[in-house]
Amino acid sequence: MATAVCESIKIVLVEPTHPGNIGAAARALKTMGLSHLCLVAPKNYPSAEATARASGADDVLHAAEVVSVYADALQDCTLVVGTSARRRSLAWPELDPAECAERLVEAAASSPVALVFGREHSGLTNRELDHCQYLVRIPANPAYSSLNLGAAVQVLAYELHKAALETGGGAAAALTDRDRPATAAEMAGLMGHLQDVATQVGFLHPAHPRLLMRRLRRLVHRSQPDRTEINILRGFLKAVQRATDGRGGD
Amino acid sequence: MATAVCESIKIVLVEPTHPGNIGAAARALKTMGLSHLCLVAPKNYPSAEATARASGADDVLHAAEVVSVYADALQDCTLVVGTSARRRSLAWPELDPAECAERLVEAAASSPVALVFGREHSGLTNRELDHCQYLVRIPANPAYSSLNLGAAVQVLAYELHKAALETGGGAAAALTDRDRPATAAEMAGLMGHLQDVATQVGFLHPAHPRLLMRRLRRLVHRSQPDRTEINILRGFLKAVQRATDGRGGD
Repeated sequence: MATAVCESIKIVLVEPTHPGNIGAAARALKTMGLSHLCLVAPKNYPSAEATARASGADDVLHAAEVVSVYADALQDCTLVVGTSARRRSLAWPELDPAECAERLVEAAASSPVALVFGREHSGLTNRELDHCQYLVRIPANPAYSSLNLGAAVQVLAYELHKAALETGGGAAAALTDRDRPATAAEMAGLMGHLQDVATQVGFLHPAHPRLLMRRLRRLVHRSQPDRTEINILRGFLKAVQRATDGRGGD
Repeated sequence: MATAVCESIKIVLVEPTHPGNIGAAARALKTMGLSHLCLVAPKNYPSAEATARASGADDVLHAAEVVSVYADALQDCTLVVGTSARRRSLAWPELDPAECAERLVEAAASSPVALVFGREHSGLTNRELDHCQYLVRIPANPAYSSLNLGAAVQVLAYELHKAALETGGGAAAALTDRDRPATAAEMAGLMGHLQDVATQVGFLHPAHPRLLMRRLRRLVHRSQPDRTEINILRGFLKAVQRATDGRGGD
């Protein structure tokens, strides 16, 4: 995989419990030409077991970024895809592994992106999924869909590698007249602003904002606004604030 | 995967050294709807480590066929594909994982077939490959192509599952709980409402609304809102109107 694309795809493991899986993930990445592993609040790490399972991929393991706060891992990412072992009741737009890989590789040509894996036993929380524009689900046996974490990383890394080979090693995405995609931080700023205004005008109940905000976030994420569009939407929200209470919000 | 096809695809591990990999392979099979594992002269088996790594797939592990002679595992098979981590100097016909999976699933509809994995460190010997009609190689990083055995089983089992779904294993289209897409009229209603509100709060200049509205329309269209989402957005706009001038707009 072209180096730039490879380095722009971050594989994020959220609170992995078994150090063996961390090592297995490092190895899976390296076999598929990926190198950027990020661990969010790992249990038992560093660990001899992780190093043993990484085998010849200890360079990827040692270079792994370790953060304590989930959102910190995604700050600079313009596209975030979460993995899920089951269909969710609230339908995040769902991609199959090949589609997911295509989108990530395409987006990685211009900016950092992330593919996020949850805890071994409980996956990602809905709150963590709120940071994701898409979900990817590996098609599996409905009666037993529980892939080992390292194995799931291997399958999706394999699809990323295939997608990278197919797009000719990082062919730049088709250019449109769109501005650069918004980062996770810019998106969070927009959603926070929207929540404030929606509360201010009495649309959101301040004590129970969650479900409605989740639906709105999903809708906004789906459109993948660029930076200019984020600014337009925030301009509109500021105008609403001014008209409502006479002061420009920010 | 249809039961008959699933049972006709035998996954053969030749002299696996690490019992953890045997357990991981059993788990990988079960997640992908496969059930037939065959072990040729395994070291350290049975083993508590294999059982632990099999996790909820201990049924597949316990049902595994154990043979001491490689050829015995293949006796009844009409198609045998061997895995290889590297290109071989003697050119066996080589398949990529997806082609390999298609052929195995197709052949398994009428008779037993086998997919053979070699030892962790040295793979399959040329003599063992002589029993194979084809080789399959997982595309990988040329500088480090050494997938863990369990991870390699997972990738190829995943391709087998995909192939089985595609050949009419009843692959239902992904269902989500999204409401029906908004009609053009509902979308026009939303955009008209947005234009009214944006004008009312002073965000749009009433004489020159065009360019900004076009950008907003493009953004909203891109997210393809469903009917419920349109209603949520219009609810928000109504709340803004109420907060701004004390009357509910429509």
